[in-house]
Amino acid sequence: MQKLRLFTPGPTMVSPEAMLEMAQPLDHHRTSGFRETLKECTGLLSYAFQTETQPLVLTGSGTAAMEAAILGCCRPDTKTLVCHSGKFSERWRDILVRFNLPHVEYRLEYGQGFKADQVDAKFKEHPDLKAVIFVHSETSTCALSDAEGIARVCRDRGALCLVDGITSIGTIPFKMDAWGVDIAVTGSQKALMLPPGLGLVAVSERAWEVVDSHQAPAYYTDIKAYRKSLEKWDPPYTPNNQMVRGLVFTLKQIKEEGLENVWAKTARLAKATRAAVAALGLELFAADPVDSVTGIRVPAGVDEPRWRKTMRGKYGVHCAGGQGSMKGQMIRLNHMGYVDEVDTVGAIAAMEWTLAEQGYKFEMGAGTAAFGSAIAAE
Amino acid sequence: MQKLRLFTPGPTMVSPEAMLEMAQPLDHHRTSGFRETLKECTGLLSYAFQTETQPLVLTGSGTAAMEAAILGCCRPDTKTLVCHSGKFSERWRDILVRFNLPHVEYRLEYGQGFKADQVDAKFKEHPDLKAVIFVHSETSTCALSDAEGIARVCRDRGALCLVDGITSIGTIPFKMDAWGVDIAVTGSQKALMLPPGLGLVAVSERAWEVVDSHQAPAYYTDIKAYRKSLEKWDPPYTPNNQMVRGLVFTLKQIKEEGLENVWAKTARLAKATRAAVAALGLELFAADPVDSVTGIRVPAGVDEPRWRKTMRGKYGVHCAGGQGSMKGQMIRLNHMGYVDEVDTVGAIAAMEWTLAEQGYKFEMGAGTAAFGSAIAAE
Repeated sequence: MQKLRLFTPGPTMVSPEAMLEMAQPLDHHRTSGFRETLKECTGLLSYAFQTETQPLVLTGSGTAAMEAAILGCCRPDTKTLVCHSGKFSERWRDILVRFNLPHVEYRLEYGQGFKADQVDAKFKEHPDLKAVIFVHSETSTCALSDAEGIARVCRDRGALCLVDGITSIGTIPFKMDAWGVDIAVTGSQKALMLPPGLGLVAVSERAWEVVDSHQAPAYYTDIKAYRKSLEKWDPPYTPNNQMVRGLVFTLKQIKEEGLENVWAKTARLAKATRAAVAALGLELFAADPVDSVTGIRVPAGVDEPRWRKTMRGKYGVHCAGGQGSMKGQMIRLNHMGYVDEVDTVGAIAAMEWTLAEQGYKFEMGAGTAAFGSAIAAE
Repeated sequence: MQKLRLFTPGPTMVSPEAMLEMAQPLDHHRTSGFRETLKECTGLLSYAFQTETQPLVLTGSGTAAMEAAILGCCRPDTKTLVCHSGKFSERWRDILVRFNLPHVEYRLEYGQGFKADQVDAKFKEHPDLKAVIFVHSETSTCALSDAEGIARVCRDRGALCLVDGITSIGTIPFKMDAWGVDIAVTGSQKALMLPPGLGLVAVSERAWEVVDSHQAPAYYTDIKAYRKSLEKWDPPYTPNNQMVRGLVFTLKQIKEEGLENVWAKTARLAKATRAAVAALGLELFAADPVDSVTGIRVPAGVDEPRWRKTMRGKYGVHCAGGQGSMKGQMIRLNHMGYVDEVDTVGAIAAMEWTLAEQGYKFEMGAGTAAFGSAIAAE
């Protein structure tokens, strides 16, 4: 009977309606019906990415989509800047290393976001950079980088701009075409409100030129093969067509709501959560906090595994912990997708009750009150 | 109101029960609950593959799983034999070509299966072969290769044996350990009775030695990363955990039924279908027909697209056509997974009715009668 609320920054909560949509009878993927579905999905993805290009659908994790982007756009004879300040940017660095792709690693302390002038300074040091990779919303540290500014620097410097938008697209402002982003990537299990299983990649005309200028050391993640699938809406390998059906369903919900309204909701939840954090005497993990997910430092005297375990076990509120070296140092509360004010105030209440259980000193109800005041002030 | 019956050799029919299992509330994948699920899934997969090893679960198509197998086991400094007599073996050849992996291509006419002595003869020509790739059940031609015999040759010759078991595992006899197969691969959308979205790879101890002897030119499809996930049941990248849940459900059904009974059912349906084909004066496409799926040559005077279109449009029976150069030459009727005698006799009836519509001469009912007699004789 216990209700589970996923407050993890992916997978996020999936609505019963979306689940039932994907439980509808399965059809084959080489049919006019599926071609229509894929075409519709692609059009809706263009809206979510804010682009005139046609995003590609890969069956796989976000990592598969990001690998596809990197192998297509980072040539073995050119140099890429990889901005690294968290577990996900570390993964993109690892892909460059694995495929022996020349790169410069730019490290910042975990919790910091990258700014345009910092990236521009790297171009002064390395004028031969041909691509920049960064994570817009670094899910592991809950930090925001300046995607618009960095994309502008890339344009000015004649380099491709590759954005991990896995926890930004469809949740905080992201405008692929207006900002001049070249590759943007997301996954199904974040703002798109589905289980994990699909990776999405949008590619600019400039990026296609680079992709077409060489043969990527890839087969399954070769984006050229997926582009061909846009001609007749026939994917190169058997796609998870049931999830594409689900994606049409959730993308339609996003379009109906309007991206600006979705962005505003995320911002509202994040702002109110930060107010609650302050009222409880807690601290944010990130120096540059992002709105998609809030990372809260575990206060002294509180045992993190026990805190999260009690929250889930007693109240069905599942928050994420820290990853890698950040393990035990923070909990993360999601604001993406199918989550609202009522859900979130409940999560904050559960956080308070379980903090009290560990003897942490604060005024009971201060968090939910601050959350409510912030919402009311909007 | 029209009922759809998927007789395509993948995706095959999915039961409403399995669909609803995957429509249950989503949980996170870094939980003790999912670890238990993945562990249970792995144990059940060992049964399906008939192996003591622990098969790996990749989020992706069968192609991703096969790429993982090839990149792990076919070293850049050793030579692989790739047996090619259909669209899928052509794809494995293409992967070897894409990654510049040294190989010898052994082509047979489409419709033929590979025999042990033929493969052994190739070892005489090329004693330096270190691996053999073949498709056990070539879905595109509906032909069977002698997996047991070829695996024995590989053992004798000290080469690894890589089997595409995508339409054989869980549907016709396949015994990984007893036969000495080194890598076996399948997908979720065939005998495992789920939508597409998961690729499964089982790896022998001998194969792991080769995998460990070099770094594969892979990241997302690097099987080493997935092996690590068996230690703590933590997959390297966000998995489609909802489909893993579905897979436990369908694998339990297979185990309860018993693999031998599943194999016998497939054989029964295939035998009875072949009897119907003969009674209708039709011909099989394959010289070495496999039981997983029957490929029937389109008779002279019958328009294949119209035939299949009418079958689906009028009777909800969706057969597959020919792929690539076989387009227009055959239709394919699936016997894998969630399909039985009653479904299949209905499909044969629909085939008769739609053949009659195109003026093909035969005795109406001869196909269903022959099908019924064959079933009754079992």
